[in-house]
Amino acid sequence: MNESGSAQLYIALIHHPVLNKKGDVICSAITNLDLHDIARAAQTFGVKRYYVVNPLTDQVVLADKIVHHWTEGKGGQVNPARRKALSLIRITSSLDDVIEDIVLESGQPVKVIATSARQESSTICFSDLKKDLACGDSVLLLFGTAWGLAEEIMDKAHGVLEPVMGNGEYNHLSVRSAVSIILDRVMSSRGRL
Amino acid sequence: MNESGSAQLYIALIHHPVLNKKGDVICSAITNLDLHDIARAAQTFGVKRYYVVNPLTDQVVLADKIVHHWTEGKGGQVNPARRKALSLIRITSSLDDVIEDIVLESGQPVKVIATSARQESSTICFSDLKKDLACGDSVLLLFGTAWGLAEEIMDKAHGVLEPVMGNGEYNHLSVRSAVSIILDRVMSSRGRL
Repeated sequence: MNESGSAQLYIALIHHPVLNKKGDVICSAITNLDLHDIARAAQTFGVKRYYVVNPLTDQVVLADKIVHHWTEGKGGQVNPARRKALSLIRITSSLDDVIEDIVLESGQPVKVIATSARQESSTICFSDLKKDLACGDSVLLLFGTAWGLAEEIMDKAHGVLEPVMGNGEYNHLSVRSAVSIILDRVMSSRGRL
Repeated sequence: MNESGSAQLYIALIHHPVLNKKGDVICSAITNLDLHDIARAAQTFGVKRYYVVNPLTDQVVLADKIVHHWTEGKGGQVNPARRKALSLIRITSSLDDVIEDIVLESGQPVKVIATSARQESSTICFSDLKKDLACGDSVLLLFGTAWGLAEEIMDKAHGVLEPVMGNGEYNHLSVRSAVSIILDRVMSSRGRL
């Protein structure tokens, strides 16, 4: 537990290695709206850092340019709320780099939890994660792009969070919606309904 | 209450009349990702219909073309889950048309509830809305684009839902995130944490 006992949640959006529709391992492209929407949700729910993981140099350069526009450039002058959100972003090339960065910053081990739309792989329920966070543990939640996280990433996680299910079998939320709902479920300080 | 007693929730994304940063009434542009992300969340949580409101003919034509690609065209053949989601969309030119359509379909009056990021205008809390839906009432939730719904729309609503707040004062979620979280809060059949 950290000294303050407050939640230490980090999130990472993984662009490689992820799966395509056929199950092949691919590298997906960073999208502008994934940066903005997820950073805004992260800032709303008190996430410590939002890592964007992509090993391709031209993708890192592009993403850094977008983030810089909103944190140091004209974008942030015009829209300070957006600057505050995008200042949470760190562009990194691998999950290992993310973990190293968090351990260095927090000074404690980090529990790595993958997310998935598949019920069968889940090992951690929302209430367990909420309890870990309430204890002040450092937790890194991994979100996949394209058709989800590759086996190589799942193997590095300590567990897999249960999927967000609605009222039926349909579970094809965008990653932006899934991140928003999961952050609300585990980080919101409001009383339950 | 409808005969089945099940939730009858409709949502509408309003592009006019909405406000710009200076508070002027404007018409905003339909975006592709608002169609996809919100339709996917709506399908996940059992929303009956997702109305996209824009009075400009060229915008209606464009949005119809996108929706048609996914419901009748190639997109839906390649991705049936996306077809299911986008089949919930109806492109309409005004809020009055939306209300008329719902009353015609459901055969009962519809309670119109606006959403806002501003706490001071709120009159309905999440638990009240959840209770209305559990009773099987027809409810239409209105979401604004740009800087939010104009006064003219707010005046037509029976109430304003409390804003989604996180752990602090920051409340600048994207409309895609706000819709996703609100649907989860009021429509999810899972037990509370």
